[in-house]
Amino acid sequence: MLFDKLCIIGVGLIGSSVARAARKQGLCKQVVAFGRETDNPNLVRAKQLGVVDRFYTDIEPAVTDADCVVIAVPVGAAETIFKLLQPYWNDTAVYTDVCSTKGSIVSAAKAVFGRVPSNFIPAHPIAGAERSGVEAGMADLFENKRLIITPLQDSHEVALEKVTRFWEGMGAAVSLMDVAHHDTVLAATSHLPHILAFALVDLLGRKDEQVEIFKFAAGGFKDFSRIASSDPTMWLDICMANKQEIIPLIQQLQAELSKIQQMLEHDESQQLFATFTYAREARQRFLDQLEK
Amino acid sequence: MLFDKLCIIGVGLIGSSVARAARKQGLCKQVVAFGRETDNPNLVRAKQLGVVDRFYTDIEPAVTDADCVVIAVPVGAAETIFKLLQPYWNDTAVYTDVCSTKGSIVSAAKAVFGRVPSNFIPAHPIAGAERSGVEAGMADLFENKRLIITPLQDSHEVALEKVTRFWEGMGAAVSLMDVAHHDTVLAATSHLPHILAFALVDLLGRKDEQVEIFKFAAGGFKDFSRIASSDPTMWLDICMANKQEIIPLIQQLQAELSKIQQMLEHDESQQLFATFTYAREARQRFLDQLEK
Repeated sequence: MLFDKLCIIGVGLIGSSVARAARKQGLCKQVVAFGRETDNPNLVRAKQLGVVDRFYTDIEPAVTDADCVVIAVPVGAAETIFKLLQPYWNDTAVYTDVCSTKGSIVSAAKAVFGRVPSNFIPAHPIAGAERSGVEAGMADLFENKRLIITPLQDSHEVALEKVTRFWEGMGAAVSLMDVAHHDTVLAATSHLPHILAFALVDLLGRKDEQVEIFKFAAGGFKDFSRIASSDPTMWLDICMANKQEIIPLIQQLQAELSKIQQMLEHDESQQLFATFTYAREARQRFLDQLEK
Repeated sequence: MLFDKLCIIGVGLIGSSVARAARKQGLCKQVVAFGRETDNPNLVRAKQLGVVDRFYTDIEPAVTDADCVVIAVPVGAAETIFKLLQPYWNDTAVYTDVCSTKGSIVSAAKAVFGRVPSNFIPAHPIAGAERSGVEAGMADLFENKRLIITPLQDSHEVALEKVTRFWEGMGAAVSLMDVAHHDTVLAATSHLPHILAFALVDLLGRKDEQVEIFKFAAGGFKDFSRIASSDPTMWLDICMANKQEIIPLIQQLQAELSKIQQMLEHDESQQLFATFTYAREARQRFLDQLEK
């Protein structure tokens, strides 16, 4: 058994999936949760569902004797959590997280500890769903999903190895990546698409004919807009945390849209056809890669 | 039986689905197809699969004695088809189409006939898939899907009724709408999202790190980008045909993106949260409506 006591900070979709998966895969003897007072109903539900053995709204008993702590809160709450953890930080335990932006969690750690503790190994499972809360969690959420670990120069080797085994034990395919590079790649592949989906649905939802628009929207729109149903709190945090990567991408997309608009205005059929064809082929490359 | 001889002009995804559905639902005795010489392999395959009884690359035998003709070609080919049909136009038959833009098909008819023939009833099934060709067709493609008929002032009542019964017979929920209004609604709900998906995938596909970007893209990206796998020829035609509706929407979306960019730049968390929340709620309204 990899760990004795696993402590999950925040039992939302991801936190409760970690709890379920770790238990299912026999990675720990016991799972406890920590949450805020206001999160009590969710914590109670986690206990009722058997997702966790116990839960706490005080940090001390939650982390005492825990040999693995998973921080599964929205990016914006990370610094607060590090402050809570600091007095009880245990050098023999390992710490990891699930935040979608890694630069910001590293900054949060530095703000509290002055440096990133060598036994905190930042991680990001490329998995999720647009639902939230403990009941949305799934024991197989990480199976065959990619997971990026962004170790730092002074990351403790044993901690890195344990955290890697932990995520791999839940079925994830672990890749190592530089913190900054992670944030660049994810801005393109995840953050920008979310902003686009939010922007489109916001735009259409404010139109007078929105009822009719939505009535005659088909499957394509449903898929395209799915990520606009994601949790606004979580996505506010992600977008703010990684805005230095996201803003240039918004600008690039604006340029791309202006280009398409000009092609339409000037009847440049050949160029527009080439753009659509290039995009279709690029998506095919993505699909081919997905199957590997 | 509603029709004796059904003639499908173009047996791509939609045309072959009409052939399959009409046969399955017993709406016609025989189905024939017309296609260009260059489309011969596809026509041969349609016959082999039993999707059509016969096929022709000459228009005359294809439409002779047909009491229903379905024009299922990309929007840009509509005028050419009307020209081919004109010498054999049969006032006792009914004609319909499946094009995604209705203003353009009406213009194409006017260009050829000087007016829209009263027995041509424009229709648009809100159904599709990103695949194309005769083999992609499905007999149940229109079942429980919406279909918009855009009759004109002098549309023949019996023709309208027959075409309505035809599409309803294939399982579609038929709504009537004004031609211009159809194009406004569909620009928002379908054409703009397609352009966005093409633009995003084109942008990312041209980046140096595209292999890595696609490697770490998750399910959200897959769904979001699905429509970027749509047929470029068809979408070129649609976008050109409806550009007067699409261009203002591109501009509105650009304004929306600029607004979001400014919120990020100026740390306007509250406004960004409100935008995301509004979008999420709007999508929920869309989902609620879909279930009705």
